[in-house]
Amino acid sequence: MRVRVINGPNLNLLGQRESQIYGVESLAAVEERMRDLAAELGVEVDFVQSNSEGALVDAIQECRGQRDAIIINPGGYTHTSVAIHDAIRAAEVPAIEVHVSNIHAREGFRATTITGAACVGIISGMGVLGYPLALRAAVELAGREG
Amino acid sequence: MRVRVINGPNLNLLGQRESQIYGVESLAAVEERMRDLAAELGVEVDFVQSNSEGALVDAIQECRGQRDAIIINPGGYTHTSVAIHDAIRAAEVPAIEVHVSNIHAREGFRATTITGAACVGIISGMGVLGYPLALRAAVELAGREG
Amino acid sequence: MRVRVINGPNLNLLGQRESQIYGVESLAAVEERMRDLAAELGVEVDFVQSNSEGALVDAIQECRGQRDAIIINPGGYTHTSVAIHDAIRAAEVPAIEVHVSNIHAREGFRATTITGAACVGIISGMGVLGYPLALRAAVELAGREG
Amino acid sequence: MRVRVINGPNLNLLGQRESQIYGVESLAAVEERMRDLAAELGVEVDFVQSNSEGALVDAIQECRGQRDAIIINPGGYTHTSVAIHDAIRAAEVPAIEVHVSNIHAREGFRATTITGAACVGIISGMGVLGYPLALRAAVELAGREG
Amino acid sequence: MRVRVINGPNLNLLGQRESQIYGVESLAAVEERMRDLAAELGVEVDFVQSNSEGALVDAIQECRGQRDAIIINPGGYTHTSVAIHDAIRAAEVPAIEVHVSNIHAREGFRATTITGAACVGIISGMGVLGYPLALRAAVELAGREG
Amino acid sequence: MRVRVINGPNLNLLGQRESQIYGVESLAAVEERMRDLAAELGVEVDFVQSNSEGALVDAIQECRGQRDAIIINPGGYTHTSVAIHDAIRAAEVPAIEVHVSNIHAREGFRATTITGAACVGIISGMGVLGYPLALRAAVELAGREG
Amino acid sequence: MRVRVINGPNLNLLGQRESQIYGVESLAAVEERMRDLAAELGVEVDFVQSNSEGALVDAIQECRGQRDAIIINPGGYTHTSVAIHDAIRAAEVPAIEVHVSNIHAREGFRATTITGAACVGIISGMGVLGYPLALRAAVELAGREG
Amino acid sequence: MRVRVINGPNLNLLGQRESQIYGVESLAAVEERMRDLAAELGVEVDFVQSNSEGALVDAIQECRGQRDAIIINPGGYTHTSVAIHDAIRAAEVPAIEVHVSNIHAREGFRATTITGAACVGIISGMGVLGYPLALRAAVELAGREG
Amino acid sequence: MRVRVINGPNLNLLGQRESQIYGVESLAAVEERMRDLAAELGVEVDFVQSNSEGALVDAIQECRGQRDAIIINPGGYTHTSVAIHDAIRAAEVPAIEVHVSNIHAREGFRATTITGAACVGIISGMGVLGYPLALRAAVELAGREG
Amino acid sequence: MRVRVINGPNLNLLGQRESQIYGVESLAAVEERMRDLAAELGVEVDFVQSNSEGALVDAIQECRGQRDAIIINPGGYTHTSVAIHDAIRAAEVPAIEVHVSNIHAREGFRATTITGAACVGIISGMGVLGYPLALRAAVELAGREG
Amino acid sequence: MRVRVINGPNLNLLGQRESQIYGVESLAAVEERMRDLAAELGVEVDFVQSNSEGALVDAIQECRGQRDAIIINPGGYTHTSVAIHDAIRAAEVPAIEVHVSNIHAREGFRATTITGAACVGIISGMGVLGYPLALRAAVELAGREG
Amino acid sequence: MRVRVINGPNLNLLGQRESQIYGVESLAAVEERMRDLAAELGVEVDFVQSNSEGALVDAIQECRGQRDAIIINPGGYTHTSVAIHDAIRAAEVPAIEVHVSNIHAREGFRATTITGAACVGIISGMGVLGYPLALRAAVELAGREG
Repeated sequence: MRVRVINGPNLNLLGQRESQIYGVESLAAVEERMRDLAAELGVEVDFVQSNSEGALVDAIQECRGQRDAIIINPGGYTHTSVAIHDAIRAAEVPAIEVHVSNIHAREGFRATTITGAACVGIISGMGVLGYPLALRAAVELAGREG
Repeated sequence: MRVRVINGPNLNLLGQRESQIYGVESLAAVEERMRDLAAELGVEVDFVQSNSEGALVDAIQECRGQRDAIIINPGGYTHTSVAIHDAIRAAEVPAIEVHVSNIHAREGFRATTITGAACVGIISGMGVLGYPLALRAAVELAGREG
Repeated sequence: MRVRVINGPNLNLLGQRESQIYGVESLAAVEERMRDLAAELGVEVDFVQSNSEGALVDAIQECRGQRDAIIINPGGYTHTSVAIHDAIRAAEVPAIEVHVSNIHAREGFRATTITGAACVGIISGMGVLGYPLALRAAVELAGREG
Repeated sequence: MRVRVINGPNLNLLGQRESQIYGVESLAAVEERMRDLAAELGVEVDFVQSNSEGALVDAIQECRGQRDAIIINPGGYTHTSVAIHDAIRAAEVPAIEVHVSNIHAREGFRATTITGAACVGIISGMGVLGYPLALRAAVELAGREG
Repeated sequence: MRVRVINGPNLNLLGQRESQIYGVESLAAVEERMRDLAAELGVEVDFVQSNSEGALVDAIQECRGQRDAIIINPGGYTHTSVAIHDAIRAAEVPAIEVHVSNIHAREGFRATTITGAACVGIISGMGVLGYPLALRAAVELAGREG
Repeated sequence: MRVRVINGPNLNLLGQRESQIYGVESLAAVEERMRDLAAELGVEVDFVQSNSEGALVDAIQECRGQRDAIIINPGGYTHTSVAIHDAIRAAEVPAIEVHVSNIHAREGFRATTITGAACVGIISGMGVLGYPLALRAAVELAGREG
Repeated sequence: MRVRVINGPNLNLLGQRESQIYGVESLAAVEERMRDLAAELGVEVDFVQSNSEGALVDAIQECRGQRDAIIINPGGYTHTSVAIHDAIRAAEVPAIEVHVSNIHAREGFRATTITGAACVGIISGMGVLGYPLALRAAVELAGREG
Repeated sequence: MRVRVINGPNLNLLGQRESQIYGVESLAAVEERMRDLAAELGVEVDFVQSNSEGALVDAIQECRGQRDAIIINPGGYTHTSVAIHDAIRAAEVPAIEVHVSNIHAREGFRATTITGAACVGIISGMGVLGYPLALRAAVELAGREG
Repeated sequence: MRVRVINGPNLNLLGQRESQIYGVESLAAVEERMRDLAAELGVEVDFVQSNSEGALVDAIQECRGQRDAIIINPGGYTHTSVAIHDAIRAAEVPAIEVHVSNIHAREGFRATTITGAACVGIISGMGVLGYPLALRAAVELAGREG
Repeated sequence: MRVRVINGPNLNLLGQRESQIYGVESLAAVEERMRDLAAELGVEVDFVQSNSEGALVDAIQECRGQRDAIIINPGGYTHTSVAIHDAIRAAEVPAIEVHVSNIHAREGFRATTITGAACVGIISGMGVLGYPLALRAAVELAGREG
Repeated sequence: MRVRVINGPNLNLLGQRESQIYGVESLAAVEERMRDLAAELGVEVDFVQSNSEGALVDAIQECRGQRDAIIINPGGYTHTSVAIHDAIRAAEVPAIEVHVSNIHAREGFRATTITGAACVGIISGMGVLGYPLALRAAVELAGREG
Repeated sequence: MRVRVINGPNLNLLGQRESQIYGVESLAAVEERMRDLAAELGVEVDFVQSNSEGALVDAIQECRGQRDAIIINPGGYTHTSVAIHDAIRAAEVPAIEVHVSNIHAREGFRATTITGAACVGIISGMGVLGYPLALRAAVELAGREG
């Protein structure tokens, strides 16, 4: 099983910015932990981070036929990006959306997710723990259907 | 660690109703699986299911000082219940909201969660797998803070 | 053919409250009339009334495989109850929603029906005559499909 | 007792168009059934169908002092026509609105009824059975007041 | 100077319907009074009344180059008719909209006027007195520009 | 018959500001014309202009039992002033609202009138001609009821 | 004079939960104080608290003809419960709504009160002092009408 | 192949009204050009223009089984007409909606199209060139499916 | 303890206008009663009434450091006045908002309170009894904190 | 060059109220600083502060032909005052709106500016520094056009 | 004549993704067909496709003075991109917006076009046939103005 | 002190496009002026312009710990970009938003600023003068806190 983990704008600053909201762990550390868990679960995993909406669309499209699952945190594009929504549908790869903070407990403009409507499901508010949870979920969901 | 799993209206019919949305596993089977996982993780777990908003509020209030985490699927009350929202805040026990289906990919009236705004976070759309994921998350989040 | 007639909050006061809106006939009298008509039509009929949303969900769920039609007036829960909506869909029994008054000719908050969207249809504004009309409709619709 | 049955735009195609929504019975057949039922109930009945909003207003106005009840399906004008709303009020004849499909279970723009707010009540979603139900209702409501 | 007075749906019932809102004077009487005033002011006046939106559009279009002013009460079409709005603009004849009742003191759906946005101005709530006021206004406005 | 003509904010600049919208006639000239017409109609008339919402409320209140009609152009307060709305109702004197420009053909925030909902009616878009029209209307409406 | 004091969901936790919002006094203490004040004012008082919407509807209905006033804090049901609204109207007993916190100074979803629209009036934001104030008000309002 | 071209209200004035928006070519000239193009493409074409919504519904219905495509400019009915929307669906003939001006670059009330949601597609803003483009499109789309 | 009682627009007409809503007691009588109660409670009280928003802001500002509580009925300014809201916050004196009628049981535009969001709390719908209740509340709340 | 600086409600309390939002500098100090800067820039400057909307309208109108620029902080009237908006347009003097705090980073009701839509531009969130910035801007903009 | 055809996000997957909506023809095939038609019409044509909003803005800006028309399908950016809207206006080259599917017959968030408001017109729902239609339109519109 | 000036989409065309809105000065000229002013104020300044949202996020992130202030005109991204909003907050550098035109005096979709809510303040409508004003403001605000 091959899984791509895609992080959107400002997630490269994870652990540095607004730690009361996003925690203190860096994206590198999160990815390291994900690599370990992937190894444990027998999954190939690779990572993309970009602040550009277009680059995220590219990264999603590349998964078409090349990955078995996508884990994606579209960051600030979550709330408006029809382009990412369409890319996820076009890729025809099951995607799980992760948010570090609880998008339903913050400003009103964060409570809608355009991108999440194209995903299998959403994990929100678990901190960086959301990523390994999503990986476990992706593996189990794939197993169930296989 | 003690965890209460609370299921709201119509979740007693899990596995029977609209299986294309909610899957084929019964609530009893889900609870059985949760009991096994709880044992594995060294967690005490108990279960409440009710179709009544008031009984759900009762079950949440009882957790105050008596449980270390709540896993709750408020079903149809998710979208309107200020009473459950207030109960979660009053209980002062971290709660994780679970939805079997992706609430952002269905009718518009399911896209808002009043109850989720009082929770730590939300897992939505993973099917019944959302429950064990939530249990793992509860354990890990507690460990992190302990 | 077996039909359950379910009445929601405050309908136990039928004939007593706001008679200019709801008429002067009591719920007992309405049920009596329904029993007579049911006998005439060769239908088994039973009645539930509750002010509790949860009890109404219970009463609807019990119809699953046990009744051939539901006639339901969800009263004040009509406008907000996703739980009752979901119960009707889960029961997989055709339901007809009845309102004594015309919900489209009153306060704005009465003009939407969340529960009615899960029903076959709606009879609104015919006074208590709506109940026997719904029974006739249930019988004829069942006949048509049988 | 004299009753006029008024059908609005596209109801002349009943039984031909979108039969999964509107059924297979033609308007002529419905009117035939209505004529039989009217005879049985001792009621004079006549029929108007037009695709024109103005012609519907005319047909409603003619009922003033000339009919004892109106049964009307305003079709697509239901959702916007203040002119038909005003005509019903001006006619001072009790009107019952009929919809073949359940207007609360379709596109959002069908969920409001401007015309229904001027009627005694509404029967929606019962298929063409809504027409004879409305006739029975009209007769009984008239009897009750007579 | 030539003026056409156009009345929309249900205004043929003026004086008969809902007299607490619309008064007791008939449309014929209003037109008679208008004829007298027109004679006094040296104005040619003619009258159109129709319940049909299309016929009203026709009547407005005919004014193009043939009338110097239009006095129009679009009745229930006021609130939605882009067709009448466009016809008034296309006619290139100054129009004054008249409403017998005060559209800002009734149901919410009467408070907007799509047609009035294409008119010079609006007289609303003066009862049938609004018509002669509009005629005086039309004459004076024409004089001012002439 | 005694009539007070009340003008709100910025109407003291009539004829000076934005003449393409408000025309070139000054408020003094308008008042002069109103005085002449009042004399002709046998009406006592007085005038108040203020830029202050409170002063307008005062001026309206003073009419209680002291005037037989109010003609008021609340200017920019039209769209928000519940205080003026309440004053008009409290005064129990029939009021006619005048707007020099057509409030339905300008910016969206001008299309609602809170104050007009407390008036008998509204004359909008006739330029300064609206004032004498309102005076004629006030006299005729009073005569009709007298 | 007989008064029932009804408290809705989570008010059983008064004094324990979120004391910066709801204060430190327990519901028992509040009821004790109410009992004393009732004795002083010569009023019979009884108390109901429930987390269940249906039980609150029951408690309100029981007041019909059996109580002279209701003091009610519907808690989280305030903002959505048409059932409680209808029960208050059906009971035909004057009701005063109490909120411990100021519902207009918190989250947006707390700023509307469906239940309060069926009450005589509302006391909000006075802390638990709102209850004795409401009792005094009920007594005085009754005296005034008696 | 048989195509009907249907024009709604005010399009009979094409070339005369607001030429900066709608251009200078008359409807007759447009129809002439369409006839030539139809001949060139081997298509039978006929034309209907009406200001009446009902007549447009009639004209659409007549295409059922009698035409292979509809080209329709519903004019001002575009934005509100559920009746025309339903007629297009009932006719079961592919329809292409044409607007001479760009409906997304004008007043807000022109930016929605109820009728277009029942069409195959929409050509908007190309001036009268939209009609021959629609004819070419209709022919090519038919060819593709044939 | 020093308390200022501030009344906004049209409250000088208390007892005269719309007595079915506002009662028959004059503002002078209310103030008299307040003076008596203040004496009884050992409180200094003074009164301001103005129809002017600016004068109300002045009167609130003067309380800064000079009064211990404000009782304010902002009348029609309640629903829109950010200026009064800001003045209350700037004064740093606890304020209680009073409304004679129940603002949640009237026109929609009365259901929001901008000013009340800056107050400690709100008493609405108790008639003029609201003022002495507010005074008692102010005294008790001050005592509690002192 | 002559510039008037106009401050609206509660700005007389600058430096005293909510200093975490508005800072600690008094209005007198701000005006002093403005006088110095004006002298340096060779500009005549005068100041008006009022809590009254009407007085602000007066102060703006007086600038017509008498000042070359207006610097205005309309305080709480910013969000609703059509009267001030109209006065600025009527004055035909370029105006710059200043807000001490960032109106886009506070409560939702502060995020719209009716008055700012009539100004050349807006400086918001710079603290009291906004005033001298506005003066510099006014001078430079005037120079550019001169 | 020089025309640039610009395709936005996910249109590189044309023919591969969701073929029931977007058809089976690839973007390369569409471009090939466009090249042939361009040759036939004597037009120079070039193509840009990018998933990046910024790259699309770049591609539009480059047309300024270098192309005579733009044909653009902004894909998912259509509904939100003010940047592309501004770029089209800044380029001062007439643009035609193309959508393969009918944006008015899909999810609500696709029904608005921010970008289309800056274009000459829109062709939507014709499948990939929309591109050659747009090219023909561009050529004819240019000829008409030339 | 180090300041980065960041310009978003289409600002590279400053002085060329829509000069009646944006003026005639080019971005190069503006930057030149800024360099001069920076030298005068003893400030290091550098410039970034990009049409890409992601590149703007990058440019903002780079300021973290490397710049003392940001001056940013996000162009068309202002109204929707949560990514830029988050980047500004993550950078923890005070930012001042500049708009050449007055965003409150244009199309409705320009009146909200998502990005501005993360900034210290906003200067809008001063033309290109907004940039040097922002630089002065940044310097003075920094001095005040230093």
